[in-house]
Amino acid sequence: MDYDRIIREIYNEVIPFQGEGAVASYIPELAKVHPDQFGLYLKCLGGGDYEVGSSRTKFSIQSISKVFSAIMAYDLMGEELWQFVGVEPSGDPFNSVMQLEYEEGKPRNPMINAGAFIVSDILFTKLQNPKEELLDFVRVLAGEDDIFPNEAVIASEKATGFRNASLINFIKSFGRIRNDIEDVLDFYYYQCSIEMTCRQLAHAFQIFANHGKLPGSDAQFLTSSQIKRMNALMQTCGFYDESGDYTFKVGIPGKSGVGGGIAALFPQEYSIAVWSPRINQKGNSVMGIKALELLTTKTGLSIF
Amino acid sequence: MDYDRIIREIYNEVIPFQGEGAVASYIPELAKVHPDQFGLYLKCLGGGDYEVGSSRTKFSIQSISKVFSAIMAYDLMGEELWQFVGVEPSGDPFNSVMQLEYEEGKPRNPMINAGAFIVSDILFTKLQNPKEELLDFVRVLAGEDDIFPNEAVIASEKATGFRNASLINFIKSFGRIRNDIEDVLDFYYYQCSIEMTCRQLAHAFQIFANHGKLPGSDAQFLTSSQIKRMNALMQTCGFYDESGDYTFKVGIPGKSGVGGGIAALFPQEYSIAVWSPRINQKGNSVMGIKALELLTTKTGLSIF
Amino acid sequence: MDYDRIIREIYNEVIPFQGEGAVASYIPELAKVHPDQFGLYLKCLGGGDYEVGSSRTKFSIQSISKVFSAIMAYDLMGEELWQFVGVEPSGDPFNSVMQLEYEEGKPRNPMINAGAFIVSDILFTKLQNPKEELLDFVRVLAGEDDIFPNEAVIASEKATGFRNASLINFIKSFGRIRNDIEDVLDFYYYQCSIEMTCRQLAHAFQIFANHGKLPGSDAQFLTSSQIKRMNALMQTCGFYDESGDYTFKVGIPGKSGVGGGIAALFPQEYSIAVWSPRINQKGNSVMGIKALELLTTKTGLSIF
Amino acid sequence: MDYDRIIREIYNEVIPFQGEGAVASYIPELAKVHPDQFGLYLKCLGGGDYEVGSSRTKFSIQSISKVFSAIMAYDLMGEELWQFVGVEPSGDPFNSVMQLEYEEGKPRNPMINAGAFIVSDILFTKLQNPKEELLDFVRVLAGEDDIFPNEAVIASEKATGFRNASLINFIKSFGRIRNDIEDVLDFYYYQCSIEMTCRQLAHAFQIFANHGKLPGSDAQFLTSSQIKRMNALMQTCGFYDESGDYTFKVGIPGKSGVGGGIAALFPQEYSIAVWSPRINQKGNSVMGIKALELLTTKTGLSIF
Repeated sequence: MDYDRIIREIYNEVIPFQGEGAVASYIPELAKVHPDQFGLYLKCLGGGDYEVGSSRTKFSIQSISKVFSAIMAYDLMGEELWQFVGVEPSGDPFNSVMQLEYEEGKPRNPMINAGAFIVSDILFTKLQNPKEELLDFVRVLAGEDDIFPNEAVIASEKATGFRNASLINFIKSFGRIRNDIEDVLDFYYYQCSIEMTCRQLAHAFQIFANHGKLPGSDAQFLTSSQIKRMNALMQTCGFYDESGDYTFKVGIPGKSGVGGGIAALFPQEYSIAVWSPRINQKGNSVMGIKALELLTTKTGLSIF
Repeated sequence: MDYDRIIREIYNEVIPFQGEGAVASYIPELAKVHPDQFGLYLKCLGGGDYEVGSSRTKFSIQSISKVFSAIMAYDLMGEELWQFVGVEPSGDPFNSVMQLEYEEGKPRNPMINAGAFIVSDILFTKLQNPKEELLDFVRVLAGEDDIFPNEAVIASEKATGFRNASLINFIKSFGRIRNDIEDVLDFYYYQCSIEMTCRQLAHAFQIFANHGKLPGSDAQFLTSSQIKRMNALMQTCGFYDESGDYTFKVGIPGKSGVGGGIAALFPQEYSIAVWSPRINQKGNSVMGIKALELLTTKTGLSIF
Repeated sequence: MDYDRIIREIYNEVIPFQGEGAVASYIPELAKVHPDQFGLYLKCLGGGDYEVGSSRTKFSIQSISKVFSAIMAYDLMGEELWQFVGVEPSGDPFNSVMQLEYEEGKPRNPMINAGAFIVSDILFTKLQNPKEELLDFVRVLAGEDDIFPNEAVIASEKATGFRNASLINFIKSFGRIRNDIEDVLDFYYYQCSIEMTCRQLAHAFQIFANHGKLPGSDAQFLTSSQIKRMNALMQTCGFYDESGDYTFKVGIPGKSGVGGGIAALFPQEYSIAVWSPRINQKGNSVMGIKALELLTTKTGLSIF
Repeated sequence: MDYDRIIREIYNEVIPFQGEGAVASYIPELAKVHPDQFGLYLKCLGGGDYEVGSSRTKFSIQSISKVFSAIMAYDLMGEELWQFVGVEPSGDPFNSVMQLEYEEGKPRNPMINAGAFIVSDILFTKLQNPKEELLDFVRVLAGEDDIFPNEAVIASEKATGFRNASLINFIKSFGRIRNDIEDVLDFYYYQCSIEMTCRQLAHAFQIFANHGKLPGSDAQFLTSSQIKRMNALMQTCGFYDESGDYTFKVGIPGKSGVGGGIAALFPQEYSIAVWSPRINQKGNSVMGIKALELLTTKTGLSIF
């Protein structure tokens, strides 16, 4: 596959969409990012790295971090994890509280905020130094240490995060959060604020393409079957209430964040990260989704 | 892959689950089926047919028919179809009306009843003889003519289908149904009542495994890309509000019906149908889902 | 109280609101009514009739009929009636189906469409000639026989009543409607289509002001306590999801219809009917509500 | 009216209901109250005080305080208040968040928690010493100074008030709370924790029976019309999602609290307070509602 040519074509074809969407405005610190940027990094399992645009610019990974925290919790809890958070798409926006009211506070899946609070609460309980261990884990997956949270983003999210505070208090009212809300939210925002480049994210997502094996190592993370399940979860739930449309058009597992990043993968073949700050009304990067749609079309490779 | 051994193992391992779940009771005619039956038919694209149990017993395909009518409409309308019905999982039960109230009567996807009414309405408008043409199409896909609707089931569904009548009237109140409700419902129930065997369904689902090509023929149905999209749609929406869990555990596209049947496929590799009348609370066959979960575990093959 | 002067002042003060709102458009036959009409008829229990504007023009009473059918059912069933329909405001629009989904098909109260279907179903079961007996009852209350249904309105409502058909099918799916849906809807539309004047309605509502006694007669309809309960029900539920606002501003029990009529009463003092075809977004007459608000302000009489 | 005999009869007739319901358990401090107590105090406007049972025992007024804070805000803001909080019954439980999601965070009425947060936020903004001024106001209405908040209850409510924290954060996410959430909640819990006797509450509610005039004084609080509107609001919204049933059975305006108290009134005639700690599933005192129902039945006096 001539990935080099393909990603250059993609670049040219997504540029015309550059003005569409808007940078997430509800987190003031994020709104400061220059909106008209685009980066892509594709990493073949069999070797071969391809990149275009701002592929080495750091951005706030936001909800992409939910994948990292979820697999840490999955590793610690095994299948028991799913007694605390489901694996169904919610059909509702990422910050919806309505569904929780009818389902006694059990979040539908760990890819939406409500589910990530459950995951964060579990990690906060089980880990000695939750922040350090989470960050170390991401660094190991990414294969480098130049990855940090952004304190200004944390402060900005906390100062405006009334909807998140509403959600987690709601869940706690059903007895589903064991730790102090402030602690869990603090840890949650820490994760969201982590900044990575497309290159780092593509590297970190190799584990999902490679069924749990870190390339160039014998280490196995989770079982092969569990990694497949995480891929399945990303497929059905990774893009909030646009997950069906994403799956329909793109057809490979991935996870988006309101910072404009998307990390995705084709099992046994490649991992990829794209980034462009302008997001659509569902919270997903306009150019990012477009780029991935072009990728699966041009390669003819989708999991379906 | 030693499919022969695998399906025999599956058979032995699902039998202990035989008493779980219950035959759909809200359609009296369906409730007459003997509950403790199980059949499985697997058809490899590269050749090789494997079957176990009541694989040649006819049963009511019910919602599996939604896949056949959806691809007929997709063929007739192209991508314009998705202006009339979405591709998102609903997150709600198969007969929920709540979501429609907040989304102006546009159904989330064609795999739930509301969406199938839209599809049926389109076919009723565009086809000369909707029933005959739909039945002929299914027969062509299945490769044989011994496929018929069951008039007693149609009558039974009509007599008790108040929830469906509620849904379609609701949708029509938004101007989204062009034909008479009685006509559309009559056509809809006709589709649901079609009876097929696991063998016939596995045959008919080869088209999805083979990206639109009927095996042993040059005929291409839909484009390869459109077939992939239909597979994606089945993956996210094919099991009502258990779709996420099904994807998580099974990991191949499929569609279930309340008659206890499930048709599924592994792209480029095989199609399969399983059947067992007892269904769980979400409307999906207990032993059927179990069998498919064992299949992807034992083969080590899932799309993720 | 100088009602004569007061209603003339009201007339002058509501005329400036004449262009506000719109005639109900979803029933085509109703949409033919000339929008800019206003009538008022006030009947003192102690004697004295006061009228202004088109007080003797017939109009479609629509949902005001729900009060008449409800008290017939109350008379037949006694307090057992409330096992089949509640007495709580719904908080939702008059044709909402969402609440029914979460409350197993039991309507909140008999003043919304869903509840009126239950009431109609009961009357259809218990009465020999439901239509004739209902019409006779209304004529007795109004004190004259010149009251008829409008066949053109019935036909128009049936032809476009998809939302009502949706609601009643939904309720029947929970086993809460005993008769054929067509029969119940036919009877329901019959009631809605009855045409009365403000004068006739004010006369008919004396029974609510007079605690169940027809003036000039010894006949007692329902018990005094039951009539008070019906007044309470009108107060909390008589104006759909504008009932709270109506109670807040007007402060006497009443019932509105989308034909633009409102019948109301002050216990032990007077009954009144107002009519103006233009309704607001909640389905209540703009000038009608304004007139009643002026009435309770000018008289200084509200039940609170 | 022989109120003395009537309240003694009521006492005898409610005692058999003493074991029904349960003390509110979600506020641990409240759960310590001895459940089997009952008190009643009735105060005629024309003179005459009647009491029975534990009419001079203090209890937590809880949501009855919402009436006091609402009229303070009404006095400060006039009709502009209703731009910030509605006057419609919610049709949902007292702590529901669902409705807020569809109505952009504007609470339905000030008698439910969500609406009380808006009122508290307004008072916190406009008053110099909100707590002191609110307490002073209640003391003036009650005619005595022996009224205090209960610090242990405040602490208990704060420690377990996750649902309230969820609600207020939700509302603030729509920009509808101007002050710090901690401050508003602190003030809110302060109000709820105020302890009064039936005697004090009946005294304080004279203002509603007397259209704004404090008996034995020329002082007018709010206008007569505004007091009537508050009575109307209590009637439609004072008992959470049991308001319709309460109005249907009792037929006089009132407000309940989960401490088991209910304060009510018959305009121009009497004010009354009843108390019994066991509440039903809707949050209203079982014996309290029963007592008021007996009162309006035995006196034959309801506003309808």
